[in-house]
Amino acid sequence: MAAFPVPADFAPAPDAATRARWREAERAVRPSRLAALRERMTAEHVGAYFGVKREHMRWLTGFTLAEGEDRVAGQSGQFLVGPDDVVVLTDSRYTIQARREAPDAAVDEIGYDLPGAWPRLVGHTGARRVAVEAAAVPHAQWLRLAEAAPEIELVAVDGWLESLRAEKTPDEVERIAAACAVADRALAALLPEIRPGVTEHDLAMRLEWLMRTGGAEALAFDVACLAGPEAALPHGSPGDRPVLANEVLLFDFGAQVEGYRSDMTRTLFVGEPRARDLEIYELVAHAQQAAIDAIRASVTGTRGRGGRLIGGRAADAAARDVIAAAGHGEHFGHGTGHGIGLATHELPRLTYVVADDSLPSPTVFSVEPGVYLEGETGVRIEDLVHLDVANDTVELLTRFPREVIALPA
Amino acid sequence: MAAFPVPADFAPAPDAATRARWREAERAVRPSRLAALRERMTAEHVGAYFGVKREHMRWLTGFTLAEGEDRVAGQSGQFLVGPDDVVVLTDSRYTIQARREAPDAAVDEIGYDLPGAWPRLVGHTGARRVAVEAAAVPHAQWLRLAEAAPEIELVAVDGWLESLRAEKTPDEVERIAAACAVADRALAALLPEIRPGVTEHDLAMRLEWLMRTGGAEALAFDVACLAGPEAALPHGSPGDRPVLANEVLLFDFGAQVEGYRSDMTRTLFVGEPRARDLEIYELVAHAQQAAIDAIRASVTGTRGRGGRLIGGRAADAAARDVIAAAGHGEHFGHGTGHGIGLATHELPRLTYVVADDSLPSPTVFSVEPGVYLEGETGVRIEDLVHLDVANDTVELLTRFPREVIALPA
Repeated sequence: MAAFPVPADFAPAPDAATRARWREAERAVRPSRLAALRERMTAEHVGAYFGVKREHMRWLTGFTLAEGEDRVAGQSGQFLVGPDDVVVLTDSRYTIQARREAPDAAVDEIGYDLPGAWPRLVGHTGARRVAVEAAAVPHAQWLRLAEAAPEIELVAVDGWLESLRAEKTPDEVERIAAACAVADRALAALLPEIRPGVTEHDLAMRLEWLMRTGGAEALAFDVACLAGPEAALPHGSPGDRPVLANEVLLFDFGAQVEGYRSDMTRTLFVGEPRARDLEIYELVAHAQQAAIDAIRASVTGTRGRGGRLIGGRAADAAARDVIAAAGHGEHFGHGTGHGIGLATHELPRLTYVVADDSLPSPTVFSVEPGVYLEGETGVRIEDLVHLDVANDTVELLTRFPREVIALPA
Repeated sequence: MAAFPVPADFAPAPDAATRARWREAERAVRPSRLAALRERMTAEHVGAYFGVKREHMRWLTGFTLAEGEDRVAGQSGQFLVGPDDVVVLTDSRYTIQARREAPDAAVDEIGYDLPGAWPRLVGHTGARRVAVEAAAVPHAQWLRLAEAAPEIELVAVDGWLESLRAEKTPDEVERIAAACAVADRALAALLPEIRPGVTEHDLAMRLEWLMRTGGAEALAFDVACLAGPEAALPHGSPGDRPVLANEVLLFDFGAQVEGYRSDMTRTLFVGEPRARDLEIYELVAHAQQAAIDAIRASVTGTRGRGGRLIGGRAADAAARDVIAAAGHGEHFGHGTGHGIGLATHELPRLTYVVADDSLPSPTVFSVEPGVYLEGETGVRIEDLVHLDVANDTVELLTRFPREVIALPA
């Protein structure tokens, strides 16, 4: 058996100069993002765009809220794009921060009464129709805005910025790759600490600590560490359960670097794997590779032959068919993958519930089939794929080995 | 000067027996919570209640999502209360978890298509009018549900469960107090590590680690650690800035224990405080005490004399008037306090933008005035107050000393 991975196998955390370069690239690209949004606004005959999602705030303006902070931030960071400027709304708690982080936006300290400020804000843009992020704006807020300026038509829109954000610039891909490397290194550093009797909770805490002291400014999401039958819970939480010999040990985790996130799942073994578990592992690995192969083949097919790039539905089917053919179709309930960037889950979606539009490009998404046997075991293998048709690229940004790893019991 | 606080000054983390008792109390109280909700439903002539907020899921059913997990959980954990049962919705990722955590609810694995399942779900309740959490349900989802069953009237409601949740049971208060003690101990343990040159980021990480290895299952929110002029950002984030001698050092942080949260702010000094900072500190401390005194006086006034319990607006004014009288009214922009429990910010609100209804009782809320001088300094002092009129209680659950603490430079 090959030696276990060690941290030095992976890229080091980005240095200060790299991070500064990313921040400059971010600021430089914002005008083109706004231009793309305004193009859509013009095409759809709306004079302004009202946004509330934290990843949209950051992508368009630089204003940054931590995950969950939007729950307590009121309307701070919500923004209104007009033909000439972007206005970032704040209350006094966030005004200084907004001026600092969003230097190219107008900061308007409206306080806590958005409906009261709404007629003035919309009036400033000259808009008579305003696009509103209807998938994120609560129904009650929608009603209050409609009432505050009855002459302004609110237009429910969804996915405009999500679609734009699905295509990644090179520095966005670099940041996702850097987050992947932080996670790769952390798991490699954790391996020697994994042994029977250590609890899921303690391993999850250690893995988090290794990421956050190893270059991550935050987690992409809470670490999942699930031992044995618990691995059958695709979104389970680590508990006081100990690692068991001859059982699976599943880690699903991600780091955040300069706003951008990673997501990876590895299912390890502690001691000699059982034949049933190994069989499922090989099946899931085969399914994952089938999806990647299908995407690769599609990229090749588009080159010079005018082929259509594969869609998220077909990519999902490539993995799902393998699992279904082995009789485990009903044990793979979730989708095969999701885009990732400023949010952990974003476009594109690789799943059986979407229309089969071609994947965007360049983009980054997960490929993560799994098989879950309730009360027995679970296996998921998840990697991030960087797809760039123009550069003939289908590469894994997660570099931690995907082969079976059986740690000493 | 008195000795600095040490961890042993505060209550230890709860043991397993205490945690088990809380979980049993939680399950035992759920039927009365459902009964209270159904009473409201009957009074408002709705036959069912559709809820989506994670704290409501947990409070009524036991189903638990981590902060932010609802962003990726789809409709999992969303629930429909009918006259006879509570149905918890899931997709396959969450079904096993829901059955385990919500044993008294019906778990319905609807997958990812809520509108498709909506007519059947509502039909099961027999309702013709359904209350919907309009402050949390996105406008787009509202439209899809309305379209899925046009004969069912959706009734926008807000605050029903929030009002019920504002009144805390004894075991809820115990859990908040336990979270406060975890935070108290963590800050006491951190004090010896605070010295000029250590960065905000490193101190925030250490404080988080001390809480999470000291009995907290999670943070209530990201730790704020702000040095010197940064303390003027009421919701700033820790950075690579070093602690400075003779400047303030503000910590705003909270722990979560068995679902319930704490929230505390302390503004410390490193080295000899400047006269200006000390003056502001004393002003803020005076304002905080004025609010607590006003609440105390009101509780005393209600006993045997039929007085009305103070409201959140008047409690806010008690603190605000002190700060305004000193000429700093414009440097205190946020509210004086907020309720806390399963969510970090919940009812009641102590602020100038609410009607002056009496505070609920028994309840727990923060009292946290602050003064922020942009580019210069900031001071906030925040404690949690447990108010219980029937037991003549106005007590601080946060026990870390509020006096000026000047650490060695």
